[in-house]
Amino acid sequence: MRVAVLGTGVVGRAIAGKLSELGHEVVVGTRDPNETLARQEPDYMGNPPFAAWLAEHPQVRLAGLADAAAHGELVVNATAGGASLEALRLAGAANLDGKVLVDVANPLDFSQGMPPSLSVVNTDCLGECIQREFPAARVVKTLNTVNAMVMVDPGLVGGGDHTVFVSGNDPEAKALVTGLLTDGFGWRDVVDLGDITTARGPEMFMALWLRLMGSLQTPMLNIKVVR
Amino acid sequence: MRVAVLGTGVVGRAIAGKLSELGHEVVVGTRDPNETLARQEPDYMGNPPFAAWLAEHPQVRLAGLADAAAHGELVVNATAGGASLEALRLAGAANLDGKVLVDVANPLDFSQGMPPSLSVVNTDCLGECIQREFPAARVVKTLNTVNAMVMVDPGLVGGGDHTVFVSGNDPEAKALVTGLLTDGFGWRDVVDLGDITTARGPEMFMALWLRLMGSLQTPMLNIKVVR
Repeated sequence: MRVAVLGTGVVGRAIAGKLSELGHEVVVGTRDPNETLARQEPDYMGNPPFAAWLAEHPQVRLAGLADAAAHGELVVNATAGGASLEALRLAGAANLDGKVLVDVANPLDFSQGMPPSLSVVNTDCLGECIQREFPAARVVKTLNTVNAMVMVDPGLVGGGDHTVFVSGNDPEAKALVTGLLTDGFGWRDVVDLGDITTARGPEMFMALWLRLMGSLQTPMLNIKVVR
Repeated sequence: MRVAVLGTGVVGRAIAGKLSELGHEVVVGTRDPNETLARQEPDYMGNPPFAAWLAEHPQVRLAGLADAAAHGELVVNATAGGASLEALRLAGAANLDGKVLVDVANPLDFSQGMPPSLSVVNTDCLGECIQREFPAARVVKTLNTVNAMVMVDPGLVGGGDHTVFVSGNDPEAKALVTGLLTDGFGWRDVVDLGDITTARGPEMFMALWLRLMGSLQTPMLNIKVVR
Protein backbone atom coordinates (compact mmCIF):
# COMPACT_ATOMS: atom_id res chain seq x y z
CA MET A 1 0.00 0.00 0.00
CA ARG A 2 1.15 3.55 -0.62
CA VAL A 3 1.41 5.31 2.72
CA ALA A 4 2.13 8.90 3.71
CA VAL A 5 3.46 9.53 7.20
CA LEU A 6 3.23 13.22 8.09
CA GLY A 7 5.81 14.17 10.69
CA THR A 8 9.52 13.47 11.08
CA GLY A 9 9.74 13.07 14.88
CA VAL A 10 10.10 9.85 16.83
CA VAL A 11 6.48 8.87 16.18
CA GLY A 12 6.66 9.46 12.44
CA ARG A 13 9.96 7.59 12.23
CA ALA A 14 8.67 4.60 14.20
CA ILE A 15 5.55 4.25 12.07
CA ALA A 16 7.28 4.97 8.76
CA GLY A 17 10.07 2.52 9.56
CA LYS A 18 7.67 -0.23 10.55
CA LEU A 19 5.34 0.24 7.58
CA SER A 20 8.32 0.25 5.23
CA GLU A 21 9.65 -2.92 6.85
CA LEU A 22 6.22 -4.47 6.24
CA GLY A 23 6.62 -3.75 2.53
CA HIS A 24 4.52 -0.62 2.14
CA GLU A 25 5.68 2.26 -0.07
CA VAL A 26 6.26 4.97 2.49
CA VAL A 27 6.74 8.67 1.89
CA VAL A 28 7.36 10.83 4.94
CA GLY A 29 5.95 14.34 4.69
CA THR A 30 7.47 17.44 6.23
CA ARG A 31 6.83 21.14 5.80
CA ASP A 32 10.21 21.89 4.21
CA PRO A 33 12.19 18.80 3.13
CA ASN A 34 15.38 20.77 2.50
CA GLU A 35 15.28 22.30 5.95
CA THR A 36 14.54 18.90 7.53
CA LEU A 37 17.47 17.30 5.70
CA ALA A 38 19.81 20.20 6.50
CA ARG A 39 19.49 19.71 10.27
CA GLN A 40 22.64 18.13 11.62
CA GLU A 41 22.12 18.36 15.37
CA PRO A 42 20.09 15.98 17.54
CA ASP A 43 16.69 17.40 18.54
CA TYR A 44 15.87 18.60 22.07
CA MET A 45 15.09 15.02 23.04
CA GLY A 46 18.49 13.81 21.87
CA ASN A 47 17.18 12.05 18.79
CA PRO A 48 19.55 12.00 15.82
CA PRO A 49 18.75 14.32 12.90
CA PHE A 50 16.21 13.02 10.40
CA ALA A 51 18.81 12.73 7.63
CA ALA A 52 20.67 10.12 9.69
CA TRP A 53 17.48 8.12 10.17
CA LEU A 54 16.63 8.42 6.47
CA ALA A 55 20.05 7.13 5.48
CA GLU A 56 19.27 3.94 7.39
CA HIS A 57 15.87 3.61 5.69
CA PRO A 58 16.64 3.90 1.97
CA GLN A 59 13.19 2.58 0.98
CA VAL A 60 11.57 5.62 2.58
CA ARG A 61 11.32 8.89 0.65
CA LEU A 62 11.02 12.38 2.13
CA ALA A 63 8.70 14.92 0.50
CA GLY A 64 6.64 18.02 1.23
CA LEU A 65 3.38 17.56 3.09
CA ALA A 66 1.20 17.87 -0.05
CA ASP A 67 3.42 15.59 -2.14
CA ALA A 68 3.46 12.97 0.58
CA ALA A 69 -0.31 13.12 1.12
CA ALA A 70 -0.89 12.88 -2.65
CA HIS A 71 1.23 9.71 -2.69
CA GLY A 72 -0.60 8.00 0.16
CA GLU A 73 -3.64 5.79 -0.14
CA LEU A 74 -3.45 5.87 3.63
CA VAL A 75 -2.19 8.95 5.47
CA VAL A 76 -0.84 8.93 9.02
CA ASN A 77 -0.90 12.12 11.06
CA ALA A 78 2.23 11.81 13.20
CA THR A 79 2.79 15.53 13.64
CA ALA A 80 2.78 17.25 17.03
CA GLY A 81 -0.87 17.62 18.05
CA GLY A 82 -0.69 21.38 18.39
CA ALA A 83 0.51 21.64 14.78
CA SER A 84 -1.61 18.90 13.24
CA LEU A 85 -4.43 20.97 11.76
CA GLU A 86 -1.97 23.38 10.14
CA ALA A 87 0.09 20.48 8.76
CA LEU A 88 -3.04 18.84 7.33
CA ARG A 89 -4.09 22.12 5.72
CA LEU A 90 -0.70 22.24 4.03
CA ALA A 91 -1.14 18.60 3.01
CA GLY A 92 -4.33 19.78 1.35
CA ALA A 93 -7.92 18.60 1.66
CA ALA A 94 -7.89 17.33 -1.94
CA ASN A 95 -5.01 15.02 -1.05
CA LEU A 96 -6.93 13.63 1.94
CA ASP A 97 -10.42 13.24 0.49
CA GLY A 98 -11.70 9.68 0.63
CA LYS A 99 -8.51 8.42 2.22
CA VAL A 100 -8.04 6.70 5.55
CA LEU A 101 -6.43 9.30 7.79
CA VAL A 102 -4.87 7.68 10.84
CA ASP A 103 -4.49 10.24 13.61
CA VAL A 104 -2.01 9.21 16.30
CA ALA A 105 -1.34 12.72 17.69
CA ASN A 106 -2.04 14.17 21.12
CA PRO A 107 -2.95 17.87 21.45
CA LEU A 108 -0.40 18.48 24.20
CA ASP A 109 -0.13 22.01 25.57
CA PHE A 110 3.18 22.75 27.27
CA SER A 111 2.32 26.38 28.03
CA GLN A 112 1.02 25.56 31.53
CA GLY A 113 4.18 23.68 32.53
CA MET A 114 4.93 19.99 32.95
CA PRO A 115 3.31 17.60 32.63
CA PRO A 116 1.51 19.13 29.64
CA SER A 117 -2.24 19.69 29.61
CA LEU A 118 -4.42 19.32 26.51
CA SER A 119 -5.26 22.17 24.12
CA VAL A 120 -8.53 20.49 23.04
CA VAL A 121 -10.35 18.51 25.69
CA ASN A 122 -13.54 17.35 27.40
CA THR A 123 -16.28 18.36 24.92
CA ASP A 124 -14.06 18.14 21.84
CA CYS A 125 -10.82 16.48 20.80
CA LEU A 126 -8.17 16.62 18.11
CA GLY A 127 -9.58 13.64 16.23
CA GLU A 128 -12.94 15.37 15.98
CA CYS A 129 -11.34 18.67 14.96
CA ILE A 130 -9.56 16.89 12.12
CA GLN A 131 -12.70 15.06 11.01
CA ARG A 132 -14.72 18.31 11.09
CA GLU A 133 -12.18 20.23 9.05
CA PHE A 134 -11.64 17.38 6.55
CA PRO A 135 -15.11 15.84 6.32
CA ALA A 136 -14.24 13.68 3.29
CA ALA A 137 -11.26 12.07 5.02
CA ARG A 138 -11.95 8.83 6.88
CA VAL A 139 -10.32 9.65 10.20
CA VAL A 140 -9.33 6.84 12.56
CA LYS A 141 -7.85 7.77 15.91
CA THR A 142 -5.52 5.16 17.34
CA LEU A 143 -2.13 4.52 18.99
CA ASN A 144 -2.00 7.90 20.76
CA THR A 145 -2.11 6.09 24.13
CA VAL A 146 1.38 4.58 23.93
CA ASN A 147 4.87 5.82 23.14
CA ALA A 148 6.41 5.55 19.69
CA MET A 149 8.32 2.33 20.31
CA VAL A 150 5.33 0.53 21.80
CA MET A 151 3.08 1.67 18.93
CA VAL A 152 4.86 -0.53 16.44
CA ASP A 153 6.16 -3.21 18.82
CA PRO A 154 3.63 -3.85 21.59
CA GLY A 155 5.60 -6.91 22.69
CA LEU A 156 8.13 -4.53 24.25
CA VAL A 157 5.73 -4.12 27.20
CA GLY A 158 4.43 -7.06 29.23
CA GLY A 159 4.74 -9.49 26.34
CA GLY A 160 2.13 -7.50 24.39
CA ASP A 161 -0.76 -8.38 26.70
CA HIS A 162 -2.42 -4.95 26.66
CA THR A 163 -4.91 -2.86 24.72
CA VAL A 164 -5.09 -0.28 21.95
CA PHE A 165 -8.17 1.65 20.82
CA VAL A 166 -9.72 2.75 17.52
CA SER A 167 -12.29 5.50 17.08
CA GLY A 168 -13.81 6.67 13.81
CA ASN A 169 -16.99 7.17 11.81
CA ASP A 170 -16.10 4.79 8.96
CA PRO A 171 -16.31 1.06 9.79
CA GLU A 172 -14.25 0.02 6.74
CA ALA A 173 -11.51 2.47 7.64
CA LYS A 174 -11.44 1.13 11.19
CA ALA A 175 -11.31 -2.45 9.90
CA LEU A 176 -8.35 -1.62 7.65
CA VAL A 177 -6.51 0.12 10.49
CA THR A 178 -7.33 -2.71 12.90
CA GLY A 179 -5.81 -5.15 10.41
CA LEU A 180 -2.62 -3.08 10.27
CA LEU A 181 -2.50 -2.97 14.07
CA THR A 182 -2.95 -6.72 14.52
CA ASP A 183 -1.35 -8.33 11.46
CA GLY A 184 1.23 -5.59 10.91
CA PHE A 185 2.22 -4.25 14.32
CA GLY A 186 1.34 -7.25 16.48
CA TRP A 187 -1.44 -5.83 18.65
CA ARG A 188 -3.62 -8.56 20.15
CA ASP A 189 -6.40 -6.52 21.78
CA VAL A 190 -7.93 -3.71 19.71
CA VAL A 191 -11.07 -2.14 21.22
CA ASP A 192 -13.37 -0.25 18.84
CA LEU A 193 -14.72 2.57 21.00
CA GLY A 194 -17.18 3.88 18.41
CA ASP A 195 -17.37 7.04 16.34
CA ILE A 196 -14.75 9.77 16.22
CA THR A 197 -16.20 11.56 19.28
CA THR A 198 -15.08 8.58 21.35
CA ALA A 199 -11.48 9.66 20.67
CA ARG A 200 -12.01 12.04 23.61
CA GLY A 201 -11.45 9.00 25.81
CA PRO A 202 -7.99 7.96 24.60
CA GLU A 203 -6.92 11.59 24.20
CA MET A 204 -7.89 12.43 27.80
CA PHE A 205 -6.20 9.23 28.94
CA MET A 206 -2.97 11.08 28.15
CA ALA A 207 -3.40 12.87 31.51
CA LEU A 208 -3.17 9.53 33.30
CA TRP A 209 -0.43 8.18 31.02
CA LEU A 210 1.80 11.17 31.79
CA ARG A 211 1.40 10.66 35.55
CA LEU A 212 2.00 6.93 35.21
CA MET A 213 5.21 7.67 33.34
CA GLY A 214 6.18 10.05 36.13
CA SER A 215 5.36 7.60 38.88
CA LEU A 216 6.77 4.46 37.27
CA GLN A 217 9.72 6.35 35.77
CA THR A 218 9.36 4.76 32.37
CA PRO A 219 7.40 5.42 29.18
CA MET A 220 7.39 1.68 28.46
CA LEU A 221 3.94 1.05 29.82
CA ASN A 222 0.39 0.59 28.66
CA ILE A 223 -3.02 -0.39 29.98
CA LYS A 224 -4.87 -3.63 29.46
CA VAL A 225 -8.63 -3.41 29.53
CA VAL A 226 -9.73 -6.18 31.90
CA ARG A 227 -13.33 -7.34 31.52
CA MET B 1 -11.78 2.84 63.04
CA ARG B 2 -14.58 5.42 63.07
CA VAL B 3 -15.51 6.20 59.48
CA ALA B 4 -17.86 8.73 57.92
CA VAL B 5 -19.16 8.01 54.43
CA LEU B 6 -20.75 11.10 52.92
CA GLY B 7 -23.34 10.18 50.31
CA THR B 8 -26.21 7.69 50.25
CA GLY B 9 -26.03 6.57 46.60
CA VAL B 10 -24.67 3.30 45.26
CA VAL B 11 -21.06 4.37 45.87
CA GLY B 12 -21.69 5.44 49.47
CA ARG B 13 -23.64 2.26 50.15
CA ALA B 14 -20.97 0.00 48.67
CA ILE B 15 -18.16 1.61 50.67
CA ALA B 16 -20.17 1.96 53.89
CA GLY B 17 -21.35 -1.64 53.67
CA LYS B 18 -17.86 -2.98 53.06
CA LEU B 19 -16.21 -0.91 55.79
CA SER B 20 -18.91 -1.96 58.24
CA GLU B 21 -18.43 -5.60 57.26
CA LEU B 22 -14.71 -5.11 57.98
CA GLY B 23 -15.58 -4.07 61.53
CA HIS B 24 -15.32 -0.29 61.25
CA GLU B 25 -17.84 1.98 62.96
CA VAL B 26 -19.56 3.56 59.99
CA VAL B 27 -21.83 6.59 59.97
CA VAL B 28 -23.29 7.59 56.62
CA GLY B 29 -23.79 11.32 56.19
CA THR B 30 -26.59 12.94 54.22
CA ARG B 31 -27.88 16.49 53.98
CA ASP B 32 -31.24 15.73 55.57
CA PRO B 33 -31.49 12.31 57.26
CA ASN B 34 -35.26 12.53 57.71
CA GLU B 35 -35.76 13.28 54.04
CA THR B 36 -33.39 10.48 53.03
CA LEU B 37 -35.24 7.99 55.26
CA ALA B 38 -38.65 9.16 54.08
CA ARG B 39 -37.96 8.27 50.44
CA GLN B 40 -39.88 5.14 49.52
CA GLU B 41 -39.35 4.93 45.76
CA PRO B 42 -36.34 3.50 43.97
CA ASP B 43 -34.02 6.21 42.58
CA TYR B 44 -33.77 7.02 38.87
CA MET B 45 -31.28 4.15 38.46
CA GLY B 46 -33.70 1.67 40.02
CA ASN B 47 -31.81 1.35 43.30
CA PRO B 48 -33.99 0.67 46.35
CA PRO B 49 -34.53 3.57 48.75
CA PHE B 50 -31.81 4.15 51.32
CA ALA B 51 -34.04 3.10 54.21
CA ALA B 52 -34.29 -0.40 52.73
CA TRP B 53 -30.51 -0.61 52.46
CA LEU B 54 -30.08 0.70 56.00
CA ALA B 55 -32.48 -1.91 57.40
CA GLU B 56 -30.13 -4.57 56.00
CA HIS B 57 -27.10 -2.88 57.59
CA PRO B 58 -28.07 -2.36 61.23
CA GLN B 59 -24.46 -1.62 62.26
CA VAL B 60 -24.49 1.49 60.06
CA ARG B 61 -25.97 4.73 61.38
CA LEU B 62 -27.36 7.61 59.29
CA ALA B 63 -26.67 11.19 60.34
CA GLY B 64 -26.38 14.72 59.00
CA LEU B 65 -23.23 15.63 57.09
CA ALA B 66 -21.64 17.51 60.00
CA ASP B 67 -22.54 14.85 62.58
CA ALA B 68 -21.17 12.12 60.35
CA ALA B 69 -17.94 14.00 59.62
CA ALA B 70 -17.48 14.74 63.34
CA HIS B 71 -17.75 11.01 64.05
CA GLY B 72 -15.21 9.95 61.43
CA GLU B 73 -11.49 9.60 61.98
CA LEU B 74 -11.53 8.92 58.25
CA VAL B 75 -14.06 10.60 55.97
CA VAL B 76 -15.05 9.29 52.54
CA ASN B 77 -16.49 11.68 49.97
CA ALA B 78 -18.95 9.50 48.06
CA THR B 79 -21.26 12.32 47.02
CA ALA B 80 -21.93 13.18 43.39
CA GLY B 81 -18.90 15.11 42.12
CA GLY B 82 -20.91 18.16 41.15
CA ALA B 83 -22.24 18.44 44.71
CA SER B 84 -19.12 17.43 46.61
CA LEU B 85 -17.76 20.84 47.56
CA GLU B 86 -21.15 21.97 48.86
CA ALA B 87 -21.57 18.73 50.82
CA LEU B 88 -18.11 19.12 52.36
CA ARG B 89 -18.89 22.72 53.32
CA LEU B 90 -21.97 21.44 55.14
CA ALA B 91 -19.83 18.75 56.77
CA GLY B 92 -17.71 21.62 58.03
CA ALA B 93 -13.98 22.32 57.76
CA ALA B 94 -13.56 21.86 61.51
CA ASN B 95 -14.88 18.30 61.18
CA LEU B 96 -12.40 17.55 58.40
CA ASP B 97 -9.23 19.19 59.72
CA GLY B 98 -6.37 16.76 60.16
CA LYS B 99 -8.45 13.83 58.96
CA VAL B 100 -7.86 11.55 56.00
CA LEU B 101 -10.45 12.58 53.41
CA VAL B 102 -10.85 9.88 50.77
CA ASP B 103 -12.33 11.38 47.61
CA VAL B 104 -13.85 8.82 45.26
CA ALA B 105 -16.09 11.23 43.32
CA ASN B 106 -16.05 12.21 39.65
CA PRO B 107 -17.06 15.74 38.63
CA LEU B 108 -19.46 14.52 35.96
CA ASP B 109 -21.35 17.14 34.00
CA PHE B 110 -24.52 15.85 32.35
CA SER B 111 -25.53 19.23 30.92
CA GLN B 112 -23.83 18.55 27.57
CA GLY B 113 -25.61 15.23 27.06
CA MET B 114 -24.42 11.65 27.32
CA PRO B 115 -21.83 10.45 27.98
CA PRO B 116 -21.17 13.17 30.57
CA SER B 117 -18.20 15.51 30.33
CA LEU B 118 -16.27 16.83 33.33
CA SER B 119 -17.05 20.09 35.14
CA VAL B 120 -13.43 20.46 36.35
CA VAL B 121 -10.74 19.21 34.01
CA ASN B 122 -7.33 19.48 32.38
CA THR B 123 -5.56 22.15 34.51
CA ASP B 124 -7.53 21.40 37.69
CA CYS B 125 -9.58 18.57 39.14
CA LEU B 126 -12.08 17.86 41.89
CA GLY B 127 -9.46 16.34 44.21
CA GLU B 128 -7.40 19.52 43.98
CA CYS B 129 -10.47 21.73 44.49
CA ILE B 130 -11.27 19.84 47.68
CA GLN B 131 -7.68 20.01 48.95
CA ARG B 132 -7.53 23.75 48.21
CA GLU B 133 -10.79 24.51 50.00
CA PHE B 134 -9.95 22.24 52.97
CA PRO B 135 -6.18 22.67 53.31
CA ALA B 136 -6.00 20.95 56.70
CA ALA B 137 -7.72 17.80 55.43
CA ARG B 138 -5.45 15.05 54.13
CA VAL B 139 -7.11 14.37 50.78
CA VAL B 140 -6.48 11.07 49.01
CA LYS B 141 -8.08 10.54 45.61
CA THR B 142 -8.76 6.91 44.79
CA LEU B 143 -11.30 4.40 43.45
CA ASN B 144 -13.02 6.90 41.11
CA THR B 145 -11.87 4.82 38.11
CA VAL B 146 -14.18 1.85 38.73
CA ASN B 147 -17.84 1.35 39.48
CA ALA B 148 -19.21 0.97 42.99
CA MET B 149 -19.26 -2.83 43.02
CA VAL B 150 -15.70 -3.15 41.75
CA MET B 151 -14.44 -0.56 44.25
CA VAL B 152 -15.00 -2.88 47.18
CA ASP B 153 -14.72 -6.22 45.37
CA PRO B 154 -12.06 -6.01 42.63
CA GLY B 155 -12.21 -9.79 42.19
CA LEU B 156 -15.52 -9.29 40.35
CA VAL B 157 -13.49 -8.27 37.27
CA GLY B 158 -10.82 -10.49 35.74
CA GLY B 159 -10.03 -12.20 39.03
CA GLY B 160 -8.84 -8.89 40.46
CA ASP B 161 -5.78 -8.61 38.21
CA HIS B 162 -6.03 -4.86 37.56
CA THR B 163 -4.99 -1.52 38.98
CA VAL B 164 -6.23 1.26 41.24
CA PHE B 165 -4.58 4.63 41.87
CA VAL B 166 -3.91 6.90 44.84
CA SER B 167 -3.06 10.60 44.66
CA GLY B 168 -2.46 12.91 47.60
CA ASN B 169 -0.03 15.25 49.33
CA ASP B 170 0.25 13.30 52.60
CA PRO B 171 2.31 10.08 52.43
CA GLU B 172 0.89 8.71 55.70
CA ALA B 173 -2.67 9.28 54.53
CA LYS B 174 -1.88 7.47 51.26
CA ALA B 175 -0.31 4.59 53.18
CA LEU B 176 -3.39 4.24 55.37
CA VAL B 177 -5.72 4.31 52.36
CA THR B 178 -3.51 1.88 50.46
CA GLY B 179 -3.73 -0.51 53.40
CA LEU B 180 -7.53 -0.30 53.33
CA LEU B 181 -7.51 -0.94 49.57
CA THR B 182 -5.25 -3.97 49.79
CA ASP B 183 -5.99 -5.61 53.14
CA GLY B 184 -9.60 -4.45 53.33
CA PHE B 185 -10.98 -4.39 49.79
CA GLY B 186 -8.63 -6.90 48.16
CA TRP B 187 -6.83 -4.67 45.64
CA ARG B 188 -3.52 -6.20 44.55
CA ASP B 189 -2.03 -3.37 42.44
CA VAL B 190 -2.18 0.15 43.91
CA VAL B 191 -0.15 2.76 42.00
CA ASP B 192 0.81 5.92 43.89
CA LEU B 193 0.68 8.60 41.20
CA GLY B 194 2.07 11.40 43.41
CA ASP B 195 0.57 14.56 44.88
CA ILE B 196 -3.07 15.59 44.64
CA THR B 197 -2.55 17.29 41.25
CA THR B 198 -1.94 13.83 39.78
CA ALA B 199 -5.64 13.10 40.43
CA ARG B 200 -6.22 14.87 37.11
CA GLY B 201 -5.10 11.62 35.51
CA PRO B 202 -7.64 9.24 37.05
CA GLU B 203 -10.39 11.88 36.85
CA MET B 204 -9.79 12.43 33.12
CA PHE B 205 -9.62 8.66 32.63
CA MET B 206 -13.38 8.78 33.24
CA ALA B 207 -13.73 9.93 29.60
CA LEU B 208 -12.20 6.65 28.43
CA TRP B 209 -14.02 4.56 31.05
CA LEU B 210 -17.39 5.88 29.88
CA ARG B 211 -16.62 4.97 26.24
CA LEU B 212 -15.32 1.55 27.26
CA MET B 213 -18.55 0.94 29.13
CA GLY B 214 -20.46 1.99 26.00
CA SER B 215 -18.38 -0.18 23.68
CA LEU B 216 -18.15 -3.27 25.90
CA GLN B 217 -21.73 -2.83 27.17
CA THR B 218 -20.79 -3.42 30.79
CA PRO B 219 -19.55 -1.33 33.71
CA MET B 220 -17.75 -4.38 35.10
CA LEU B 221 -14.36 -3.45 33.69
CA ASN B 222 -11.10 -1.88 34.75
CA ILE B 223 -7.61 -1.29 33.46
CA LYS B 224 -4.43 -3.02 34.46
CA VAL B 225 -1.26 -1.00 34.17
CA VAL B 226 1.17 -3.23 32.28
CA ARG B 227 4.84 -2.38 32.68
